[in-house]
Amino acid sequence: MSDFADILHRPGHEIVADVAARRLSAREVAEAALDAIEAGNPKLNAFTDVTHERAVREADRVDDLVRRGTPPPLAGLPYSVKNLFDVEGVVTRAGSKINRDNPPAPRDAGLVERMTASGGVLLGAVNMGEYAYDFTGENAHDGASLNPHDPSRMSGGSSGGSGTSVAAGMVAASLGSDTNGSIRVPSSFCGLYGLKPTFGRLSRSRTFPFVASLDHLGPIARSPRDLALLFDALQGTDADDPAQIERSPIAAGATLEGGIDGLRIAVAGGYFRRQAMPEALAGVDHVAKALGVSREVELFEAHRARAAAYLITTSESSAQHWPRLVERAADFDPDTRDRFLSGAMVPAAWYIAAQRFRALFRAEMRKLFETVDVILAPATPFRALPSGTKTVELDGVTLPARPNIGLFAQPISFIGLPVVAVPVWLPGATLPIGVQVIAPAWREHVALRVAHVLHATGATSAPVAALIRDE
Amino acid sequence: MSDFADILHRPGHEIVADVAARRLSAREVAEAALDAIEAGNPKLNAFTDVTHERAVREADRVDDLVRRGTPPPLAGLPYSVKNLFDVEGVVTRAGSKINRDNPPAPRDAGLVERMTASGGVLLGAVNMGEYAYDFTGENAHDGASLNPHDPSRMSGGSSGGSGTSVAAGMVAASLGSDTNGSIRVPSSFCGLYGLKPTFGRLSRSRTFPFVASLDHLGPIARSPRDLALLFDALQGTDADDPAQIERSPIAAGATLEGGIDGLRIAVAGGYFRRQAMPEALAGVDHVAKALGVSREVELFEAHRARAAAYLITTSESSAQHWPRLVERAADFDPDTRDRFLSGAMVPAAWYIAAQRFRALFRAEMRKLFETVDVILAPATPFRALPSGTKTVELDGVTLPARPNIGLFAQPISFIGLPVVAVPVWLPGATLPIGVQVIAPAWREHVALRVAHVLHATGATSAPVAALIRDE
Repeated sequence: MSDFADILHRPGHEIVADVAARRLSAREVAEAALDAIEAGNPKLNAFTDVTHERAVREADRVDDLVRRGTPPPLAGLPYSVKNLFDVEGVVTRAGSKINRDNPPAPRDAGLVERMTASGGVLLGAVNMGEYAYDFTGENAHDGASLNPHDPSRMSGGSSGGSGTSVAAGMVAASLGSDTNGSIRVPSSFCGLYGLKPTFGRLSRSRTFPFVASLDHLGPIARSPRDLALLFDALQGTDADDPAQIERSPIAAGATLEGGIDGLRIAVAGGYFRRQAMPEALAGVDHVAKALGVSREVELFEAHRARAAAYLITTSESSAQHWPRLVERAADFDPDTRDRFLSGAMVPAAWYIAAQRFRALFRAEMRKLFETVDVILAPATPFRALPSGTKTVELDGVTLPARPNIGLFAQPISFIGLPVVAVPVWLPGATLPIGVQVIAPAWREHVALRVAHVLHATGATSAPVAALIRDE
Repeated sequence: MSDFADILHRPGHEIVADVAARRLSAREVAEAALDAIEAGNPKLNAFTDVTHERAVREADRVDDLVRRGTPPPLAGLPYSVKNLFDVEGVVTRAGSKINRDNPPAPRDAGLVERMTASGGVLLGAVNMGEYAYDFTGENAHDGASLNPHDPSRMSGGSSGGSGTSVAAGMVAASLGSDTNGSIRVPSSFCGLYGLKPTFGRLSRSRTFPFVASLDHLGPIARSPRDLALLFDALQGTDADDPAQIERSPIAAGATLEGGIDGLRIAVAGGYFRRQAMPEALAGVDHVAKALGVSREVELFEAHRARAAAYLITTSESSAQHWPRLVERAADFDPDTRDRFLSGAMVPAAWYIAAQRFRALFRAEMRKLFETVDVILAPATPFRALPSGTKTVELDGVTLPARPNIGLFAQPISFIGLPVVAVPVWLPGATLPIGVQVIAPAWREHVALRVAHVLHATGATSAPVAALIRDE
């Protein structure tokens, strides 16, 4: 077994630079990642499918390109994908038992094809909450993906395996999906940088949907530069996703060093401070201080935005799953099934009211963004909870834990705003907490620039968990 | 009282030409219309509000413009509007009892402003089904608007007063709304030409909505040239209607004589023939023969399109009316209230499934329109029913009458296609029946050209009913 930590425990862009410069071969990186998975996965349960042969084949191809003097932009970057992305030859389970009866996917998802074209090396598909209706990282069929910083705690979901695989250093990056927070929550719980791009920005072709009008795909990684590299590789129009919104790509990598001079940054007040635990407020305040920000702004009726996001989630996902609920109810995780069944009873009039409020909220947020360029808010109301936690007390009220993990993520994804989640390690803390860096639609690069400043100054960081390495 | 028939009983464009050429003054036309309303309205119950002073004022302004040598395009055209259009100083009742507690509208609807700017002369607001949820022309609060060709029969709804006022020769044209057929049904029952433009084409600002994703506004008149004149005056972007789809205006009037050479025209088969009464099939076949058409095309799952249109109608309208249903249930027409209340119980999952089917149906219709330019179908499954008819037998099955009046109209408006309804008088018939001339999105002018050929050859016609004149 190689000393995989030396190779892997750095941000992805450093690995890519070494591969491109032939200081390291993509094959060595892939083998280090396979070793790390072999060592870590039995403990952490991140991967459901390891694509061993593909990884070696893709790595060899990258090395060949490097030898020819044409290193691709993500040369040798080892990554995983949430198991709702189609991977040729792998059954797309979407966290479910039911979907594993499907035949293997005949073709990669659009974004996986883009990763391949850019020299990424796929290590496999990772664990997720059933049909993505989750914030914990638990899965009734595959077991929970564990938090590498403390395996007794939640990895966060629904892209739990993405968080686990990157935080444990098995891969440098992962592609996840975020409907109400499913990239930002594991980023917060596992101490990683996560990018939820603007709704409609990246292709969703050949991925298994959760909520058509809320689903976003995006990367999780260990530095803002990694996110920018990945984002630039993933952008572009895909004729196979008719719902994608046509938009010129932006060069996030090239503008990453732009700094924050002149940016109007503010902290989200009101709703975003009331139900936060002290560490969540401390995380935001830490980031605000590092950026020299003291201004606070109020988001228009954020509590309603969150409620409306849930109504749309439960209605659209229940419509999506109705045939399976009718035919194979017993094969669902009972908790997920109850969520879908209750969603099937939501009156259309409520759903329509939620969609109408969404238009209003979007208009109000557009107005707010005339006076501010970036908004800071907690990614989660608290750090990773102990696995199995059923209730939490927020603002003096005992509430169900799972749905409230997304309390601060939901109002933002509701109208598709781009967000970079940044990981804060408060003094003395053994667990991280995430902060959302929120930009107006289509301005991912601005949020990435802010994250880059925070990372460069050490205000935020995404160290690999000690777990695998130390044993 | 003037001999109003001599002045009014011609298509609107002839009146406009006479006013523009000073063969007739707009004031004379307005007074003739006021006389016709005074004579006819007590019998037919078309108008709920007559704007006497405004009509005279607008007519005088037109005459002034004509004297200055700048006649506007609709110079002196006398018209009515369905009482869901805001008319300054008039309470917009939208067919309801509840809304007449509102203050008078402070400003005209966007389309009414366009009519004024083009020299139209408004005679008043006309009767309609409560909140437009109607196909009969009945109204529990104002009484039914009657069919001028046989007052024992339905005018058709929900733009019943529009049909009555134009067919009786009180005005030359009327603006109505069409959600599932509410322009096409009264056009069919009253023997008029009606234009339902493409969804999103005309501004809906300051009109009372029924179903946000299905409502269209458009004109009813006595010739295709009148429709083209009106359509050209009504087109244009309106910042006050954020839901309007931006689109360059088309010159329907200028291209009206283009003829039908090279147009691929077909009759809708399958669904559109199965539940039609013989006169509806005879109407379509009459038009097809006049156009030399023998080809038949099948619309993809039209029965589902109709069901989905109803699900969306009842869901969105119930969401729209929910506050009134909660606070003032007793003030609704009991029949309408039941429709809204049942709509409030539709599950969101059904609504979402209907919206998804809509996308599929639209895609299939786009494919069909690659092989055909115009499709012919019945506007209604039968001629105007006797007022109070509760059931009809279609294809051997006894069905509720009201909802099935829209059987053939609904699948077309479901995806916002433009339609011109043309009136057929079969040999020996004392009542007309309408045929839909359906074009692809944004191609209203093509349907109008087909209608113009039919009108010019006498295959279709919209004579004024004899009722008022003969007594």
